[in-house]
Amino acid sequence: MTRARIAVDAMGGDYAPDEIVAGALRASEELDADILLVGDPVPIQRYLKEHAPTAKPQIVEAGDVVAMGEEPLTALKKKPKASINVAMDLVKAGAADAVVSAGHSGAAMAAALLRLGRLPGIDRPAIGAVLPTLIPGKSVLVLDVGANVDCRPKYLEQFAVMGSIYSQYVLDVEDPKVGLLNIGEEDCKGNDLALKAHQLLRQNRQISFLGNAEGRDVLSGQFDVVVCDGFIGNVLLKFAESLGSVLLQILREELPRGWRGQLGTALLRPNLRKIKQRIDHAEHGGGLLLGVDGICIISHGSSQAPSIFNAIRLAKEAVDHRVSERIQACYQQAVAVEDQA
Amino acid sequence: MTRARIAVDAMGGDYAPDEIVAGALRASEELDADILLVGDPVPIQRYLKEHAPTAKPQIVEAGDVVAMGEEPLTALKKKPKASINVAMDLVKAGAADAVVSAGHSGAAMAAALLRLGRLPGIDRPAIGAVLPTLIPGKSVLVLDVGANVDCRPKYLEQFAVMGSIYSQYVLDVEDPKVGLLNIGEEDCKGNDLALKAHQLLRQNRQISFLGNAEGRDVLSGQFDVVVCDGFIGNVLLKFAESLGSVLLQILREELPRGWRGQLGTALLRPNLRKIKQRIDHAEHGGGLLLGVDGICIISHGSSQAPSIFNAIRLAKEAVDHRVSERIQACYQQAVAVEDQA
Repeated sequence: MTRARIAVDAMGGDYAPDEIVAGALRASEELDADILLVGDPVPIQRYLKEHAPTAKPQIVEAGDVVAMGEEPLTALKKKPKASINVAMDLVKAGAADAVVSAGHSGAAMAAALLRLGRLPGIDRPAIGAVLPTLIPGKSVLVLDVGANVDCRPKYLEQFAVMGSIYSQYVLDVEDPKVGLLNIGEEDCKGNDLALKAHQLLRQNRQISFLGNAEGRDVLSGQFDVVVCDGFIGNVLLKFAESLGSVLLQILREELPRGWRGQLGTALLRPNLRKIKQRIDHAEHGGGLLLGVDGICIISHGSSQAPSIFNAIRLAKEAVDHRVSERIQACYQQAVAVEDQA
Repeated sequence: MTRARIAVDAMGGDYAPDEIVAGALRASEELDADILLVGDPVPIQRYLKEHAPTAKPQIVEAGDVVAMGEEPLTALKKKPKASINVAMDLVKAGAADAVVSAGHSGAAMAAALLRLGRLPGIDRPAIGAVLPTLIPGKSVLVLDVGANVDCRPKYLEQFAVMGSIYSQYVLDVEDPKVGLLNIGEEDCKGNDLALKAHQLLRQNRQISFLGNAEGRDVLSGQFDVVVCDGFIGNVLLKFAESLGSVLLQILREELPRGWRGQLGTALLRPNLRKIKQRIDHAEHGGGLLLGVDGICIISHGSSQAPSIFNAIRLAKEAVDHRVSERIQACYQQAVAVEDQA
């Protein structure tokens, strides 16, 4: 296996470039991967000089950046030297295997589509997010969480196939169980999209479809992959992330009440820090854009060094396990079977 | 003001009739309302004899019940004497002002539609759920949470108007701020439904529309009313409820680690109980079916006495504040304005 080469968009994100560079430096020390920092060398070098004078990361110059408020397509065209464009071009040219970006997520997706293109057999790429479940050590992959706001049933079927491959090869789940996000367990439940997608998923032989997953089942650990349209997935993901802070606020308000509360809270400080970590989304890394011809990890705009490190690790694992090739192979097989029929 | 008369479906729910009767008895003691217990007198009397021998609640006989697995419309036709049918008939006949049921929610909704009918001007009734927010003492009304899985933009507009009235008169919010559940703050964001609904909400003079509410904004306290289609609302509500147990489990696992953890947790026991209460959905009561000609509270199937009590209190408040009449008046006004234009 050759070493994975990860292009990191050093200019994207609320804490760019400092936190991005910090996460990338840690990754190049701890992971068996080559990191390419894509961005403006001046602030990157300034950071290195101050915080890591001995580090010699590879820097690929990209003078421009797509700002958060910009309309993605216009910005990408107007700025061919934007860091996200340059990073994608590295993958396109075969000089890198994957891109990690915490910048404008719409721009990252558009750049991936325009520069790398879709995998054959995939109508719409999807963004997958990995959430923790009630079962310790077990996570669930939810997709799409924002790439496609209006979906057709067959897109959801494709999400299920791509999600299963990712779950199996990157998250190490043997025979991943797939659920369709829906409002009831019964097959006859749902809106028009869910009803039609249910039929397709039932018939698909490439996945293990368990049936409908209600809102309460998403984090139960019963399912390894949950598919939904990108509108509801995005709402759900952002809702889940906000609940972390709701809970932390409740703890902050209620725990220290009374003298017993004060004392107990003081004693529990280390355990509370661990709870905050488990709840906090910042630790989780990022979403994977599945279905484009290359590996792209789209991180939160608010990502700091630990998230960037995790995102790079995700990217490396996706590269090492040849996720794109496997999805492609799966669809070539499917097309071949259809041709025979 | 006359006393509100509440018909309680004693046979509906996982813990019927015992827990339903217990909640109803508490309501008739503590609330200024007349309670009618609708159901099979035999198990009701058995419960009373054992647990409240001096209580003399009014019982309205209804020998049948719609079971959880039944197809609502068929069951309601086949069983005219089902408790939910009899309860709705009491409202229709003017013998009660409101219905509370923890039974089959599809059947409750269908019975309300068939027996009470929609309010003039309302295309689709919606179920509203009240959730706590980050701001102590402030809640948010989310609707629809399950009545309509496929929505048109104008339904969402009607949900916003009905929700504002409910928020103002029952939840005591002056000038309720309305949000549209969406995937971005910008007006141009969203799926087809959200984009069109956004336009209608912007133009509507009967509500204070604040703009889009992302998943993370739902519980922020910025919005008093959040509208969405019943598919996403249902998924979100069930997801939120399940997160309560996820968080409690994390606390149970992490807090007592180590001797400091054990001691701290012991000291915090009373405060942890309060946290559990704040998180636990069982305390919240139920959803209000808005847009039918009468007041209906649809409680969780898993409701026990405290939830039933809360549901009855909700019903009483909706009756006392004449929510149905106000919605109707609002639409008569709107129709009149349209006719003039």
